Amino acid sequence: MQHILSVLVENRSGVLSRVAGLFSRRGYSIDSIAVGPTEDAAVSRMVIVVEADEEGLEQITKQLHKLIDVIKIHDITKEARVERELALIKVQADAQNRGDILQIVDIFRAKIVDVAEKSLVIEITGDTEKVDALIQLLRSFGIKELVRTGRIAMVRGMRS
Amino acid sequence: MQHILSVLVENRSGVLSRVAGLFSRRGYSIDSIAVGPTEDAAVSRMVIVVEADEEGLEQITKQLHKLIDVIKIHDITKEARVERELALIKVQADAQNRGDILQIVDIFRAKIVDVAEKSLVIEITGDTEKVDALIQLLRSFGIKELVRTGRIAMVRGMRS
Repeated sequence: MQHILSVLVENRSGVLSRVAGLFSRRGYSIDSIAVGPTEDAAVSRMVIVVEADEEGLEQITKQLHKLIDVIKIHDITKEARVERELALIKVQADAQNRGDILQIVDIFRAKIVDVAEKSLVIEITGDTEKVDALIQLLRSFGIKELVRTGRIAMVRGMRS
Repeated sequence: MQHILSVLVENRSGVLSRVAGLFSRRGYSIDSIAVGPTEDAAVSRMVIVVEADEEGLEQITKQLHKLIDVIKIHDITKEARVERELALIKVQADAQNRGDILQIVDIFRAKIVDVAEKSLVIEITGDTEKVDALIQLLRSFGIKELVRTGRIAMVRGMRS
C-alpha cells in the first residue's frame, strides 16, 4: 500500500541523505519526495510517498524517530487531505496541431507557459490522477520532456 | 550563487541517498530538491537547487557523473527557462476575515482548496518570488501549516 509521510526535519546538512539512506537500507524505494522550506527557516518539511505494508511502515517510522534531525512524523495516508502535484510538460507542436493541444489544455484547466516554433510547455497542478490523465492525452503529440514535483499533501481542517 | 541542476537518474533503490550524500559530504547544503517520474519508468528526474560557487559546482558535477545511477546532468542556471513551484498554505480564517483572504487569493490567482470553520487551505503555483510574496501577505492572518514542493524548471524551446 502507498503511504504518504509528512516529516518535519531540522534543516541540517546531510539530513536528506540520512533519511533517504534509511529507506534504501531497508529495501524500500521512495516513489516520490518533495523537500521544501517551512515558516521556520531552521526546519524543512519532506513529503515522502513510499510503498510499504503496515509492518514495514512501523519499522520505518521507528527508525526515523531515532534520527536526531527528525522532529515529527505524520502518516497522513488515512486522513482527509488535499493532495497536489505540479508538472511541466514539453510537447511537440506546430501550427497544424497547436489548436488541438490548446483544447486539451483548456479542458484540464492547465496553462501554456512557453510557446516556441515546434514546441509548447504546459503547466498543470492537480492530483496525480489528473496529471497522469493529461500526460496520457498529450502522448500522441510527442512529449519531449517531463518534469514533475513529488506529491505534496495537507490534512484538511484544523487538525495537523 | 544558486544553481539549478536537472539530473536524470536510474530509478534504483538508494539513488537519492547516494546523490544527497555526495552533496553533504562536500559540505553543500541542498536548498530544495524535487524528485519525480519521467516518461521512462526506469528513469527519474531530480531538480536540485544548491548554493555553490563555479569551482564547487564543477566538483559536484564531476562527482555526480561518477555515480553509475546518474545518466545526465544539466546545469540550467544560465538557460532561458520556466521555473515553478507549488505550495499549500493553511491559514487561520473565520467569518470576519475570510473576505480579506479571498481578495488576496484572487489577486494572486491562487485557489482555495479547503474551507473549514477556522481555516482555509490555499493552493498556489508560480515562481518562488510569487509564492514568497503570497506567504508574506498571509502571515498576518496566521499561517498554521505550509507545504512547498521544491522548485522545478524546464529550458524554453526545443533545446533540452
